[in-house]
Amino acid sequence: MTFLRQPTRAGVRDAAAKVAAILPPTPLIVAEVHGTPVAFKAECLQPMGAFKLRGAWHRLTAIAAEDRAKGVVAFSSGNHAQGVAWAARRLGMPSVIVMPSDAPKVKRDATLAMGAELVPYDRKTESREKIAAHLAHARGAVLVPSFDDAWIIEGQGSAGVEAAKQAESIGFGAISRVVTPCGGGGLAAGLALALPDAAIVTAEPEGWDDMARSLEAGWIEPVRDDPPPTACDALQTMRVSERTFEVLARRDARGVAVSEEEVRTAQRRAAAKLRLVVEPGGAVALAALLARRVEPLPGTLVLLSGGNTDMADYAHVLADTAHASLAEAL
Amino acid sequence: MTFLRQPTRAGVRDAAAKVAAILPPTPLIVAEVHGTPVAFKAECLQPMGAFKLRGAWHRLTAIAAEDRAKGVVAFSSGNHAQGVAWAARRLGMPSVIVMPSDAPKVKRDATLAMGAELVPYDRKTESREKIAAHLAHARGAVLVPSFDDAWIIEGQGSAGVEAAKQAESIGFGAISRVVTPCGGGGLAAGLALALPDAAIVTAEPEGWDDMARSLEAGWIEPVRDDPPPTACDALQTMRVSERTFEVLARRDARGVAVSEEEVRTAQRRAAAKLRLVVEPGGAVALAALLARRVEPLPGTLVLLSGGNTDMADYAHVLADTAHASLAEAL
Repeated sequence: MTFLRQPTRAGVRDAAAKVAAILPPTPLIVAEVHGTPVAFKAECLQPMGAFKLRGAWHRLTAIAAEDRAKGVVAFSSGNHAQGVAWAARRLGMPSVIVMPSDAPKVKRDATLAMGAELVPYDRKTESREKIAAHLAHARGAVLVPSFDDAWIIEGQGSAGVEAAKQAESIGFGAISRVVTPCGGGGLAAGLALALPDAAIVTAEPEGWDDMARSLEAGWIEPVRDDPPPTACDALQTMRVSERTFEVLARRDARGVAVSEEEVRTAQRRAAAKLRLVVEPGGAVALAALLARRVEPLPGTLVLLSGGNTDMADYAHVLADTAHASLAEAL
Repeated sequence: MTFLRQPTRAGVRDAAAKVAAILPPTPLIVAEVHGTPVAFKAECLQPMGAFKLRGAWHRLTAIAAEDRAKGVVAFSSGNHAQGVAWAARRLGMPSVIVMPSDAPKVKRDATLAMGAELVPYDRKTESREKIAAHLAHARGAVLVPSFDDAWIIEGQGSAGVEAAKQAESIGFGAISRVVTPCGGGGLAAGLALALPDAAIVTAEPEGWDDMARSLEAGWIEPVRDDPPPTACDALQTMRVSERTFEVLARRDARGVAVSEEEVRTAQRRAAAKLRLVVEPGGAVALAALLARRVEPLPGTLVLLSGGNTDMADYAHVLADTAHASLAEAL
């Protein structure tokens, strides 16, 4: 049930106005990386801990009043689920989330706490797409994809509109480059539309860098079989979509991959220097800069896209300073 | 060398304007504590990780142009030092910091990184007041106290002016009560001046709750001999000052004490739910609410005053979930 509307810059501006009406901007924090001032967009400080409520809000508010009582359905391992549940609760709509039974408990609990109904599925034997489509059909509810959707892309792009305004107002100046975590590419594509004069760099975990390889190849390359384990649960997308890929390819975006160790170092530096709790998938763009997989340049915007992480794992990451070679870079 | 000027509300407003000219407001984050929405002022997100640059900026900018080259001297175990060093560097002034030789390395390094000259002293055998006064006299530099000073109090109060504006603009409404960490009382007194209609509650670690006991007694009671060890290094002040005490006593402020365990729980909840790294001393006000030593009421502002903490200690705190009894309160 693909909707063919393409995301537009006007749509991003509309989303930004809608988001600004209900949420204060997340902080834009300037700090030096390898000696160059860089602007960090702290989306981990959103009420549900990630940027995902932007797209969800833009999408759900576009549902006609008479259809709202039937609710929405989404499938997601975490942050998208929370974003949809958050927006649905705010609009007084029911929400159903199809979530893998092995999703991090912190994300499951948080989604339940936001009043969503959870439908668990087995990652190995069941298709979440089919379960979600069936549920949506049975209830007459709207299926809300996590990235392959014009509204979702536009909504995520509102972070770029917000950041550009903040960068001007605090004297950081124009944003000439964006480095952003990338799963399915919804946030990256939205930022590309929001910031037409900026170079776009996507960051992904090694082995999950299908957007990087796709942009390099000029067509969509899925994640290869048997990808390595990664702590970046929010970025485990097997294939980007035509919609997100096209937006990025048209803009000559490029992608970089970071190692698990680089992600962990980035989480530690974000805690020590920015005083922010950032989840693994939310830290990949910072990791790319710290590891110089992207050179820090003036005018760079870095997305810290989420902060929902298991505290036991997080404590373990902070305690491990054995490989702190990038420690002084931020 | 006591300066007799008393802090005023007009001075706080002046400080707020001066701070607003150089720093974006720190976020005001609304989250529920025991089911009641409370506004958190995230001063841990200041560039040097604590509110202290507010007072330092207000004080240093009041130094006459012809005296600035002689610099400033401060004694502090950490955050005040960094605040003074930050403001001095920004104004192109030299700064000397008298710091205990056993101060946390993270604070020592950060102060050095801001271009300050460090003069270590032995907490047990030397008087930091004497060393600092001697240095200031010898250099013709201005001694910048950490709390017993009208400018410092007014400067710290700028956080309250900022928070009140933000609370109105995001629909939180008027601030009717403030719960704040308290060492020497500079921040608490400043907030009292900034928010004349709010009830003021100070929070201190158990055994270091001299402000609470002083407010109860009606005169200044110092910390008793042999106070217990505390993780709250930023709040280890042996005696509050007449200036801070009087402001608070006149406002019928009251104080509460929190246990070390309550502080640690608050640090963990701030990480998990607010995605903020808060140091022990910065978490005491949140701890007081979580432990219901102060009942959460609508209109409550909670200061998260700093986030400069040793990462190894912090990792240890986050890993310890054995006593997570307050876990669901925030």
